[in-house]
Amino acid sequence: MEDYHKPDQQTIQVLKNIANRLRINCIKATTAAGYGHPTSCCSVAEIMSVLFFHTMRYRPEDPRHYNNDRFLLSKGHAAPALYSMWVETGFLKESEMFSLCHADSSHESHTMHLSRVLSDGRWEMSEGSVWEAMSFASYYQLDNLVAILDINRLGQSDTAPLQHHVDKYYKRFEAFGWHAIIVDGHSVEELCKALSQPRHQPTAIIAKTIKGKGIPAAEDKQGWHAKPLPKDMAEMMVKDWQGRITNTSKHLYPSAPIEDSPPVSLRNIRMPSAPSYKAGEKNEHPNRFVECYMAQQNMVSVAVGCAARDRNLVFASTLAPFFTRAHDQLRMAAMSESNIKLCGSHCGLSSGEEGPSLMGLEDFAMFRALPSSTVFYPSDGVTAEKAMDLAATTKGLCYIRTSRHDCPIIYNSNEDFHVGQAKVVYQSKDDQVTVVAGGMMIHEALAAAEHLKKERISIRIIDPFTIKPLDYKTIIDHGRATRGRVLTVEDHYYEGGLGEALSSGMVNEQGFNLHCLAVSHVPRSGKPHELLKIYGIDRDAIAQAVRKLMSSSTNAK
Amino acid sequence: MEDYHKPDQQTIQVLKNIANRLRINCIKATTAAGYGHPTSCCSVAEIMSVLFFHTMRYRPEDPRHYNNDRFLLSKGHAAPALYSMWVETGFLKESEMFSLCHADSSHESHTMHLSRVLSDGRWEMSEGSVWEAMSFASYYQLDNLVAILDINRLGQSDTAPLQHHVDKYYKRFEAFGWHAIIVDGHSVEELCKALSQPRHQPTAIIAKTIKGKGIPAAEDKQGWHAKPLPKDMAEMMVKDWQGRITNTSKHLYPSAPIEDSPPVSLRNIRMPSAPSYKAGEKNEHPNRFVECYMAQQNMVSVAVGCAARDRNLVFASTLAPFFTRAHDQLRMAAMSESNIKLCGSHCGLSSGEEGPSLMGLEDFAMFRALPSSTVFYPSDGVTAEKAMDLAATTKGLCYIRTSRHDCPIIYNSNEDFHVGQAKVVYQSKDDQVTVVAGGMMIHEALAAAEHLKKERISIRIIDPFTIKPLDYKTIIDHGRATRGRVLTVEDHYYEGGLGEALSSGMVNEQGFNLHCLAVSHVPRSGKPHELLKIYGIDRDAIAQAVRKLMSSSTNAK
Repeated sequence: MEDYHKPDQQTIQVLKNIANRLRINCIKATTAAGYGHPTSCCSVAEIMSVLFFHTMRYRPEDPRHYNNDRFLLSKGHAAPALYSMWVETGFLKESEMFSLCHADSSHESHTMHLSRVLSDGRWEMSEGSVWEAMSFASYYQLDNLVAILDINRLGQSDTAPLQHHVDKYYKRFEAFGWHAIIVDGHSVEELCKALSQPRHQPTAIIAKTIKGKGIPAAEDKQGWHAKPLPKDMAEMMVKDWQGRITNTSKHLYPSAPIEDSPPVSLRNIRMPSAPSYKAGEKNEHPNRFVECYMAQQNMVSVAVGCAARDRNLVFASTLAPFFTRAHDQLRMAAMSESNIKLCGSHCGLSSGEEGPSLMGLEDFAMFRALPSSTVFYPSDGVTAEKAMDLAATTKGLCYIRTSRHDCPIIYNSNEDFHVGQAKVVYQSKDDQVTVVAGGMMIHEALAAAEHLKKERISIRIIDPFTIKPLDYKTIIDHGRATRGRVLTVEDHYYEGGLGEALSSGMVNEQGFNLHCLAVSHVPRSGKPHELLKIYGIDRDAIAQAVRKLMSSSTNAK
Repeated sequence: MEDYHKPDQQTIQVLKNIANRLRINCIKATTAAGYGHPTSCCSVAEIMSVLFFHTMRYRPEDPRHYNNDRFLLSKGHAAPALYSMWVETGFLKESEMFSLCHADSSHESHTMHLSRVLSDGRWEMSEGSVWEAMSFASYYQLDNLVAILDINRLGQSDTAPLQHHVDKYYKRFEAFGWHAIIVDGHSVEELCKALSQPRHQPTAIIAKTIKGKGIPAAEDKQGWHAKPLPKDMAEMMVKDWQGRITNTSKHLYPSAPIEDSPPVSLRNIRMPSAPSYKAGEKNEHPNRFVECYMAQQNMVSVAVGCAARDRNLVFASTLAPFFTRAHDQLRMAAMSESNIKLCGSHCGLSSGEEGPSLMGLEDFAMFRALPSSTVFYPSDGVTAEKAMDLAATTKGLCYIRTSRHDCPIIYNSNEDFHVGQAKVVYQSKDDQVTVVAGGMMIHEALAAAEHLKKERISIRIIDPFTIKPLDYKTIIDHGRATRGRVLTVEDHYYEGGLGEALSSGMVNEQGFNLHCLAVSHVPRSGKPHELLKIYGIDRDAIAQAVRKLMSSSTNAK
């Protein structure tokens, strides 16, 4: 700490002024809006001031510039505190800030992009995902990461489990391989000093703070969470704080970022050539790979972080069922319009021997219900590669569902694929039933077709390729050509899967008879082909369903 | 440790024999099956032996008896090690054990019930949910909880992040308020001693072990994960271990449990009377309430634990969107046929001001896709209570979706409700369109009905009450009575919600025209009634959709 350059008294005073102006703005804005969390803002006033005007390097006019230091506000309740900093830097007008939290405001999306990754104390310290991130950061010795904990003791309706025991937080961080520093979160001097220390590992600044600091009636008191101050009280407090702001001739400006990152474009990404693997070959680019271990919540967060500011094209992969662990992170990613690409392997019954906990049978339901998501369901090596290629250039969250086992190649390498375009993989003129199947199920459908041929029954097989968007038109057109008889087969539960998705697009078409095969119970473990039979989605079940559909009388108009 | 009663040499030898017989059985069984994780079993051999024949008190003939000490095997890969203990206690025949992992085996479900709660090391120590549980256990000073970490260093394809650094695990547990003890996991003596210590807080036994212990070719070696031994190697090892088993005259029997828990029945649970709240009243039974803080993964696990062995009826509640964090725990609960009841508040757009991260707009999709789940969607105080009452007596995982805001009472307190039975809440003879709406949406539909009346358009309104199972018959019958015109409205995304669920049940009905209103984009924050309007699911949107449906020409047959 010998080399710590202590800020002069004027600087200290300006930082205190900024903190108090933050309080003024947050009280005014939340009282005007009639809702918000002013006491949560007050506890971070000095932290925000020091970060934005002493510690961080960034372009104030362009908060999303890729060379900036990155600030992630985890406690979303304190969003007005961030807006207030933008007012200080000139990025936002005071009047714009006041419209915060209104449905017609344009600010909200900003907070959303910045929030919920790391930094707060209290509540969040109970969340497991935070400790996944802690392990990860120390494992990779991320010396450019600083977590600031706003330990203000109070939760929404009760105290936080560790209250003000900052020593306990200290021990936990140290045990997880972080350098931890305890400070008074309202001391500008202590914050400046702690944030100036050289870093060789991830650092946690454990700031003991007072919820509602500066508002005597609310300081460290229950019953003020999420409550704007009444108008007269707000006015009184604003006056009080204005009196504490001392005029100085000094002005602080954020330091400019180090412009060391070249611009990057993710447009027009293409595979250099059709890949051709040799057995036993290793990952060609191990330095582009980050092992996240068994911590899928953090894996998705790391992916979102890497993809931020459009500087990396990120693919994250785990077993399909393990994405359920990161469901919250996935929905937050979708809300933030993150451009992450996800691959879930071992889908459906293909990891049969490992038992149901390792089977992904609800992944369509989960990924389809993420706003603006795209869901690919490749069925062989060619479609798996094409899906990856298309995911790379399709904006937003993409999910690729892959099976565990080798599937024989169905498609020619030159076949052209598009998002939302189904493929007819098998047909003749006299087809009686249209079978819609993806992934491993196509192979069962093809086997059923061979079998049915012997009975002089011909079927048409359609590969949807993407489950979202689903190519209703192609399926309905072909379904009509087979007298309205359509069968879906999927290694997924009924709910939220292919069958339901098709139903919703077909329900108003007249003269159709849609039958859906899917997994209806929790499967036990066993060899995949045995399980397909037991749960009624194998070639025999398909052939049987086709025969049954043929005996139905409906005819498409 | 003065009072530690050291086991005699014969006892030690018998425990070693049991461990080696475990190895023999696991190798034989996995080699015979052609798959499994023999090396994962070998690392826990001594741990299992000491637990089952020295430490735990239980009825060997009834592993699920409620007075037993409870053993939870988190590393599912070591399931054969558990079966082997059951062979030792006489609960299972050796021949039964050998059929393990086959699709026609009856054992699998047992492991499932016992697995995945706590105890293993390595991989799992990266999972955030484990650290949520750590915090919880120390906060509540659970002195009856012992976690045994099998630190065998190796993961599936690489080393675990902390390898054999047991000191690091030690620090983390201590920091989280646990008493931690490091032992040699293959020393029967050390294990007996550590497990005999008096406990005043949760205890972690950090056992340094060798993956594949006892198999020289595989000990601590990469490349043996999930690989059964080849037949000749297995035979050689079995011979080797048989040679190490020393005959003794001593036999060990598990200690009988302390029979201090009275039998309990959860049948015929009924509300004693219709509740009538007074403003300001506190929870009537604070000692029946467990605060889990912001750790929903652990909250669901705690609920599953409390509900195990049918001794408690457990309701767990959080904001609807926060259940996404526990999606994996929920699917494991459903697989284990757990009888937990969940309530998700703040559903849909009802927590408007808090922004989209706090809106539950995918909860139908998630909960519907859990096998055997029941999903309630109450619309007022009466249905909320009835849903709770019915959930209490409906077997399996039940989810109750509630709104944030007060909803006016629609139903009479004496109205009879059933799972899967929809209610007609508004109708006349000349209804033109059937509107299906639940929760807050019913109130919008009722307002739309009043409005449309002025235009001499009358609509029928159906409250599904449960979304799963959905009462297709009632809806279709009434839909037919309104010339096939049906409208669904939901404060949920389209995918996996009410509209899709109804589509799948209606797709083969002829002459229907189903229109679905749902949330199609990530909402911004705002007042709920503003958001309902913006996202097209308010009274005006319903009225407009009704008018549009009336101009359509379809007529139900």
